Amino acid sequence: MERSIAVLLSGSGRTLENILDKIDDLKVSVVISSKNDVRGVEVAKKNNIPCHIIQRKNNKDVDKFSEKITKTLEKYDFSLIVMAGFLSFYNFPEKYNQKIMNIHPALIPSFCGKGYYGMKVHREVYKRGVKVSGCTVHLVDKKYDHGPIVIQKACALKAEEKPDDIARKVFELEKKAYPEAINLYLNEKLTIKNNRVFISD
Amino acid sequence: MERSIAVLLSGSGRTLENILDKIDDLKVSVVISSKNDVRGVEVAKKNNIPCHIIQRKNNKDVDKFSEKITKTLEKYDFSLIVMAGFLSFYNFPEKYNQKIMNIHPALIPSFCGKGYYGMKVHREVYKRGVKVSGCTVHLVDKKYDHGPIVIQKACALKAEEKPDDIARKVFELEKKAYPEAINLYLNEKLTIKNNRVFISD
Repeated sequence: MERSIAVLLSGSGRTLENILDKIDDLKVSVVISSKNDVRGVEVAKKNNIPCHIIQRKNNKDVDKFSEKITKTLEKYDFSLIVMAGFLSFYNFPEKYNQKIMNIHPALIPSFCGKGYYGMKVHREVYKRGVKVSGCTVHLVDKKYDHGPIVIQKACALKAEEKPDDIARKVFELEKKAYPEAINLYLNEKLTIKNNRVFISD
Repeated sequence: MERSIAVLLSGSGRTLENILDKIDDLKVSVVISSKNDVRGVEVAKKNNIPCHIIQRKNNKDVDKFSEKITKTLEKYDFSLIVMAGFLSFYNFPEKYNQKIMNIHPALIPSFCGKGYYGMKVHREVYKRGVKVSGCTVHLVDKKYDHGPIVIQKACALKAEEKPDDIARKVFELEKKAYPEAINLYLNEKLTIKNNRVFISD
């Protein structure tokens, strides 16, 4: 399988930077950003990655928005679509089923679902006073944070740690978990049965 | 603070055995079982602990059932009430607020709430295909699995591991987490603010 991915993002591009930094022999064929004025677009340009902006706010209809993404993706070759801080719903075509990966900054099924992204997640983790949080890499289906779970990594939390501290700790886990999961996918180590992800050696 | 506890149970008594095994200088003042014919009652007797049976099935009204438990508890001295596989709702009086501890075999707020106990928890964990589960020791309030979280411990899971395997792994964590949390309580190391548990050295 070709070691190439497409990346969807809406923000700072720090996840894209991490992927580029951590995965050798990886081609990012294209970046699509749902926002115009974000740092992620600069990261793509700096790395000479073709970058398209398909703004959600200019495409109120989610199906038309999704269609534009699909049409753009179709111009490129890739084995996997990686959501790297992509905040919009993408109503993807059947052919991309189990070919889209996402990362969530908590241990699914805790602190996830519609509206749970970014600092909101860590603020809720803080409020509930849990002693363990973490991150989840999963394949994407048509419900928020619902697809098969590839990798989860956990970290211990103390009551003293504020949402910002939790965010920092969890992002350290993300930096390892996402490249690991993408590599497993590109090296054809994943099998999915009944919404469960089996990893072969 | 006197290092003594009261124990509520409904089943095998393996959590009671573990507590007796792991915590030195601990007095179990009384055991109350909500079931008649369970091994937990034998464990109490074998360890010469006063044991009362207050069957839930003979006390259909939860308030009368709870009152009987309270009246029995009042005959004994203890610093903490420990639920050790207690499967009934105990509508405790105000004076026991934040003086009752429970353990849940998953990482709250995942896989918890009414009906989530025993193997049901591990079957749901298995079905969802999560890669991390664990256990949660928490103080009890009037909602299921809702009180302040004292300790959580996590373990990695593989897709190959069946509910029985998960149960075994999680119980290994419970055997450490519960004595640790009880010791912290009895040694007055816990402070609760806004549903958050702070642990002092």
